[in-house]
Amino acid sequence: MRYFVTGCAGFIGSTLTDRLLSLGHEVVGYDNFSTGRARFLERALAHARFRLIRGELSEAGELAAAMRGCELVFHLAANADVRHGLEHPRRDLEQNTLATLQVLEAMRAAGLKHIAFTSSGAVYGDAVQVPTPEEAGFPIQTSLYGASKAAAEGLIGAYCAGLDFRAHIFRCVSVLGERYAHGHVLDFQRQLAADPLHIRVLGDGRQRKSYIYVHDCIDAMLLALERATARINILNVGTEHSCSVDESLGWICAALGVQPQVTYGGGERGWAGDSPLILLDVGRLRALGWQPRLTIREAVQATVEYLRANPWVLESCA
Amino acid sequence: MRYFVTGCAGFIGSTLTDRLLSLGHEVVGYDNFSTGRARFLERALAHARFRLIRGELSEAGELAAAMRGCELVFHLAANADVRHGLEHPRRDLEQNTLATLQVLEAMRAAGLKHIAFTSSGAVYGDAVQVPTPEEAGFPIQTSLYGASKAAAEGLIGAYCAGLDFRAHIFRCVSVLGERYAHGHVLDFQRQLAADPLHIRVLGDGRQRKSYIYVHDCIDAMLLALERATARINILNVGTEHSCSVDESLGWICAALGVQPQVTYGGGERGWAGDSPLILLDVGRLRALGWQPRLTIREAVQATVEYLRANPWVLESCA
Repeated sequence: MRYFVTGCAGFIGSTLTDRLLSLGHEVVGYDNFSTGRARFLERALAHARFRLIRGELSEAGELAAAMRGCELVFHLAANADVRHGLEHPRRDLEQNTLATLQVLEAMRAAGLKHIAFTSSGAVYGDAVQVPTPEEAGFPIQTSLYGASKAAAEGLIGAYCAGLDFRAHIFRCVSVLGERYAHGHVLDFQRQLAADPLHIRVLGDGRQRKSYIYVHDCIDAMLLALERATARINILNVGTEHSCSVDESLGWICAALGVQPQVTYGGGERGWAGDSPLILLDVGRLRALGWQPRLTIREAVQATVEYLRANPWVLESCA
Repeated sequence: MRYFVTGCAGFIGSTLTDRLLSLGHEVVGYDNFSTGRARFLERALAHARFRLIRGELSEAGELAAAMRGCELVFHLAANADVRHGLEHPRRDLEQNTLATLQVLEAMRAAGLKHIAFTSSGAVYGDAVQVPTPEEAGFPIQTSLYGASKAAAEGLIGAYCAGLDFRAHIFRCVSVLGERYAHGHVLDFQRQLAADPLHIRVLGDGRQRKSYIYVHDCIDAMLLALERATARINILNVGTEHSCSVDESLGWICAALGVQPQVTYGGGERGWAGDSPLILLDVGRLRALGWQPRLTIREAVQATVEYLRANPWVLESCA
């Protein structure tokens, strides 16, 4: 089967691309390399079944031409920075919502009808119900990132209703593992590389979040594509577990062999719009037969090991 | 009090403007006259407490400057055409979602923090629960219009969470009454003006929708501003009643004294993404003490009378 992957040079995109190639599929990858890394694609580029196209999602003609002949579009390209939305108020809307419209329009032009989209647990805002199921009450958004992903889901819904598109929408928790290039593990590790004796933590350290290992996330998505067969399939992707920022910091410090003095920013939220508790109900995913391979602790450790072995990621990230 | 009203030359915007002026308030109105009508503002323009600014919401500096000194922003400017979203796929996103971001950013620049926003019952998509309460399950969007309004709500939520904005979000059913310039009553009346013996109806005529009279809608919004005091107040605005397309057509024909032969487009939906049943739970609004003045039938009749007395509306609308 021939897949089209937007954001193919990103953390999840490149890992998905490698997986699809290893399963014998063809992959056409599309990326503008704004945050994607060429090094993540070294393995894929050695493959005859991989074709890389450097382009913007706003280039409608190029995008549609690149898609032609593919059967499924994995739309992963996104601004993944949850924290700084209000400093760049148009960014999430443009890179996550409008970009999704551009992908949908290109699919329409190219005659493709099936999209798999990586949404986010952030679409639930401050969920009333925790663990949060997919059919939780109408959410009130708390971040521009979450709002932009929810809005992208809305666009996909409209294309399914009006143009007979099919969709798999994955509301993922934060993803960890090899090629991780953004988030708290990297923040902490970069701080500790600069000064192993001191570290600053946003919030009070007690915020609890759920995480998933990147290969478990990809297992979940591929399994759902096979087994969830409604017109629109919406699935939480995470584990039943969460950890506090302090716990995660403890695992990171143990792995690095450091014992820094911790300074807390204070408050129950790491930043405005941060949710102090993210834990999704993954019963729908479990019912498909999915099983995670790694615990959160193991996923944090794998991430630390990866970043230690690849200091260029620490150094090059924004 | 000084209000800022976007879309002040529209159906609801101009009626709201007149009401606020008659209550003794000052109004700064902003409109680009893309669908607004200068004639709707004749009464307001005779008022010393009204100031009209012709401009685009994309003109950030002008918009913020115009707002300065106002206490509350009524953001009504929107593309109100629910039906043709997929023919102009960027229009709803630009005129409803991005435009709301522009309003929020202008408010931020001007130091305003309180927004009243006319959202829509369309944000519920095909609601599972009917009558649909505000906290209904996470909606799956079925139209680009509904998706764009839900997305705008999301942006407002993020500004409330991150920048201490306050919001009143009104999820309105279709509005009827004087200055009505868009929708099924106008479609039918225009068809019957051209040929009183024949009429074409989209769908099977059995789609049921709820409607509200424009002055009842404005009563609801002003009452909620006074009595709903949370940071984010989300309220359905409609009545407990609905009518079928056929019933409405019957009232229109009776009022016009015609008996046309009806041809149905067929299918339970009037168009792709149309919802065959829209009825909102308005308990939250009722609990504030709100009472509607007109039944749906009376509101349809008032609309027919208005359009009959103002043939220029029939003739000039797109």
